[in-house]
Amino acid sequence: MNSEKPKNILFIMFDQLRFDYLSCAGHPFLETPNIDKIAEKGVRFSRCYVQSPICGASRMSFYTGRYVDSHGAAWNNFPLKVGELTLGDHLRKIGVQSWLVGKTHMQADVEGMERLGLDPDSIIGARVSDCGFDVFERDDGLWAQGPDGYYDEKRSPYNEFLKQKGYKGENPWHAHANSGVDEQGNIKSGWWLNNAGLPANINEEDSETPYLTNRAIEFLNKMQDEKSGSWMCHLSYIKPHWPYIVPAPYHNMYGQNQVLAAVRSDYELENTHPVYKQFIDNKVGKAFQREEVRRSVIPAYMGLVKQCDDQLGRLFSHMEKTGQMENTMIIITSDHGDYLGDHHLGEKGMLHEPSVKIPLIIYDPSPDADASRGSQCDELVESIDLAPTFLDFFGANIPDHILEGRSLNQLIHNQKPEIWRDFAVSEYNYSTTPMAAKLELAPRDARLFMICDKNWKLIHAEGGFRPMLFDLKNDPDELKDLGDDSSYSSVIDSMYNHLAQWSRRQSQRTTISDEKILQARSKRKRTGVLLGVYDENEVPLDQRQVYQGKADIRLEQDED
Amino acid sequence: MNSEKPKNILFIMFDQLRFDYLSCAGHPFLETPNIDKIAEKGVRFSRCYVQSPICGASRMSFYTGRYVDSHGAAWNNFPLKVGELTLGDHLRKIGVQSWLVGKTHMQADVEGMERLGLDPDSIIGARVSDCGFDVFERDDGLWAQGPDGYYDEKRSPYNEFLKQKGYKGENPWHAHANSGVDEQGNIKSGWWLNNAGLPANINEEDSETPYLTNRAIEFLNKMQDEKSGSWMCHLSYIKPHWPYIVPAPYHNMYGQNQVLAAVRSDYELENTHPVYKQFIDNKVGKAFQREEVRRSVIPAYMGLVKQCDDQLGRLFSHMEKTGQMENTMIIITSDHGDYLGDHHLGEKGMLHEPSVKIPLIIYDPSPDADASRGSQCDELVESIDLAPTFLDFFGANIPDHILEGRSLNQLIHNQKPEIWRDFAVSEYNYSTTPMAAKLELAPRDARLFMICDKNWKLIHAEGGFRPMLFDLKNDPDELKDLGDDSSYSSVIDSMYNHLAQWSRRQSQRTTISDEKILQARSKRKRTGVLLGVYDENEVPLDQRQVYQGKADIRLEQDED
Repeated sequence: MNSEKPKNILFIMFDQLRFDYLSCAGHPFLETPNIDKIAEKGVRFSRCYVQSPICGASRMSFYTGRYVDSHGAAWNNFPLKVGELTLGDHLRKIGVQSWLVGKTHMQADVEGMERLGLDPDSIIGARVSDCGFDVFERDDGLWAQGPDGYYDEKRSPYNEFLKQKGYKGENPWHAHANSGVDEQGNIKSGWWLNNAGLPANINEEDSETPYLTNRAIEFLNKMQDEKSGSWMCHLSYIKPHWPYIVPAPYHNMYGQNQVLAAVRSDYELENTHPVYKQFIDNKVGKAFQREEVRRSVIPAYMGLVKQCDDQLGRLFSHMEKTGQMENTMIIITSDHGDYLGDHHLGEKGMLHEPSVKIPLIIYDPSPDADASRGSQCDELVESIDLAPTFLDFFGANIPDHILEGRSLNQLIHNQKPEIWRDFAVSEYNYSTTPMAAKLELAPRDARLFMICDKNWKLIHAEGGFRPMLFDLKNDPDELKDLGDDSSYSSVIDSMYNHLAQWSRRQSQRTTISDEKILQARSKRKRTGVLLGVYDENEVPLDQRQVYQGKADIRLEQDED
Repeated sequence: MNSEKPKNILFIMFDQLRFDYLSCAGHPFLETPNIDKIAEKGVRFSRCYVQSPICGASRMSFYTGRYVDSHGAAWNNFPLKVGELTLGDHLRKIGVQSWLVGKTHMQADVEGMERLGLDPDSIIGARVSDCGFDVFERDDGLWAQGPDGYYDEKRSPYNEFLKQKGYKGENPWHAHANSGVDEQGNIKSGWWLNNAGLPANINEEDSETPYLTNRAIEFLNKMQDEKSGSWMCHLSYIKPHWPYIVPAPYHNMYGQNQVLAAVRSDYELENTHPVYKQFIDNKVGKAFQREEVRRSVIPAYMGLVKQCDDQLGRLFSHMEKTGQMENTMIIITSDHGDYLGDHHLGEKGMLHEPSVKIPLIIYDPSPDADASRGSQCDELVESIDLAPTFLDFFGANIPDHILEGRSLNQLIHNQKPEIWRDFAVSEYNYSTTPMAAKLELAPRDARLFMICDKNWKLIHAEGGFRPMLFDLKNDPDELKDLGDDSSYSSVIDSMYNHLAQWSRRQSQRTTISDEKILQARSKRKRTGVLLGVYDENEVPLDQRQVYQGKADIRLEQDED
């Protein structure tokens, strides 16, 4: 590794990319050679879990390095509280810049900022508003529009780009990038899943993934021109997230004969857990139970993934040309998965593997990582592990009284850590959904917790329900819920004990480090507080130094 | 109640005042007629628990209305993180001033304030630094001094007062207010417990409790002169907290024959829980196991309490003269108790009743409270209940997504609430102490949790220890630890289940109220996100309104 060059991190995230829709992860039809190439140069993690299978909450965990229950931004557009520290805060502290190119789904805590008098237009205020990043480009890619206005009121750089390019309409993001065009030239909305197979109404090079790739290349050139110091760049794509539609030639690159069968069984529809039942019966679940929906959507989804891979190919060859591969750590991951009809469900939210497990590939240019190149790691890994991994990459101390994840560096360097986590945890808050209303649950009871090890996955639902339990060893497809089977009560008890231990973790003592606490133990400041001394003669004279009259005390503090 | 006058709250806290050292609570020798008078006009709670039996952590729970594990300021001088909302924030929001006269033990999150660019000298910065209060007087009353300087580096208004009065020495707080004088006129430090019986080296009217009472009267007069609107004033005394020494005539008002026998048994020294054993063996524990220590300290402690009661008498008669009794809610409580030798322990920290249970008396001037005057309430109450009670008193909504306590108003108004808490929880973090070092515990494992109902108290210790269990019905003195008795395993399991439920509580989703979540359920904004629709014909035409060409969407959002 060239020591003259500063080390950088390119933290690439896709949105709603399933862990198994990559050729390096074993997909039989989908070819992703550019992502595979990074896997060959790095480590691919086969069991990485997000902290919540929903954009906003999951991302806040990536960006804070903390569990959802610790940072509190439990669903889309729940503001991240003003006091929470982010990756950007930790990196700036060690002199590393933290840049955003793309999506965060961050909702600023406007009320909290007002309370503390933080101006959103100040540098600090802008960083707090953007989850600790300095913004090269922020585009959350959700420019949907209805009678009550836009889903996202922010300015859309991408829509402005399309208008400059001459695309017509008030919202070309929808009418062009996310609508199809049929053979008669009629524009068909990408919201209708039966249009998924049409080519998007846009030139491929103007669609969202190439657009953001261009912006990323502009960023890389800018940083190289400026000879800036070390940076971490979060390159965050909206795709293959819905609307499921992709421009030619990707729209018909994959055929219905390449649509994998849905992983589901009728058994799942018997004695179904009441919360799971709500997901099965919701609009998206019902839609993806229809084979015509899967056959329409999945080829488009595969095309979107293929386009993502091609664009990473462009990006990586630019980095190779400009000599940035040898000093840049590259992460490829996603904020959650997509059921695509598995388990009778669509989208995400429930806690089966297709929803909660994500791809994670890490390429570390350091020689230390040579031993592990091209390998697969099957340890239990969580999305919150990236923040400490980044600090470790830059040789910084990891504030583990704030960051709840663990550095992956040893795993990346093929050194088996002495102790690794035995359990992964994910959470889902469905309190705002009609499902919670149908179950008549109070907001705080509309919460799911997943805890799994390599053999078992338990899903706990607040609100007085039985748990769900899956035998991951013998039923890796999670088709048989054992949560109602009394013969597994000891397994359930032990999983609940681990969940209880996790729930008691100390997550809020963020203003005092373990290091400071250990220092306080070993060397207590002598500031005159003396407890439990009956007679001054119990204290050595040389320490006592009681001045006559003033009676000032000069002794070891003892605050036991 | 005079409707012309604004409603106010006088929130009086003593430091280290045991729940049972009041005549209204049944102490056989100690007379506290002025406190008793408030009990006769209000409600006395017989089972109020602090969230942690240590000044700093307990107070942060009083002032935030949140459990220690939720606000994170788990021990003395652990800074309260900058984002935490305080009683002052909630009250100011409804136009009620929040004033401090006395002690808070608040440690500002200086690093967090710097990170957010908060100037401690700005109004907002000063409030954040002082736990949300506007400061009439801040005096934490801990002006101990040693080779490494003062325990508390802040300016001491009380020491300045003493110097103005002509008291000599660099630190008259110690040499006069907290030292004794023997018959030969020698000054004897109050740190030595064998000096506890001497009269303090100061005129009674210049000692700490009268001094702060004077400041409180000045505050009341100021607010009356200014005809200010509603306010909450936290009048926070340092006494009867150590050093255990009191001026004449209180120093010999109580005799050794009035020292109650220590509540302890040799049984407690057999098969002792390893963590409890550390408390028994620490310096303070060993001291208070000596009868001479108890006989020296307890009469002084009783004298300090008596002085506190006399000073409240002065304060209340001033309030009666100035007509402030009829519009002021009065709270009398403490931040934790004092073992005074019970259970072979001194001070506080462990989780037996003398440490974790506090006096709580609430006088509500409203006619609604007439039905309950002079009554005793035996419900399980926690210190975090005061914050919501105050908001309720002012008729404000209670943000129960932030405040974890429950309003006591129904109990104060003698209306039995339909649902009340079944369990009280307290925590103790001893990670900085030599006890944790002796047990070789990591900081996060040096934590205790108490959960109790009216029949049982379980104490869980992190770090792989067995629990402690007490049968409060049959062993109210907590002399027999049943935590190692397998015949109680079902009780232990059920208490652990309740602790697990408490640990999973949602404590950090503070930026979105339950109300907003329920609104989102019932009326979702129509912003054009449409999931799970295969064919536009599945949507009523009148809703569809797909404009030809532009394909703009005008439909119900459905984000299930």
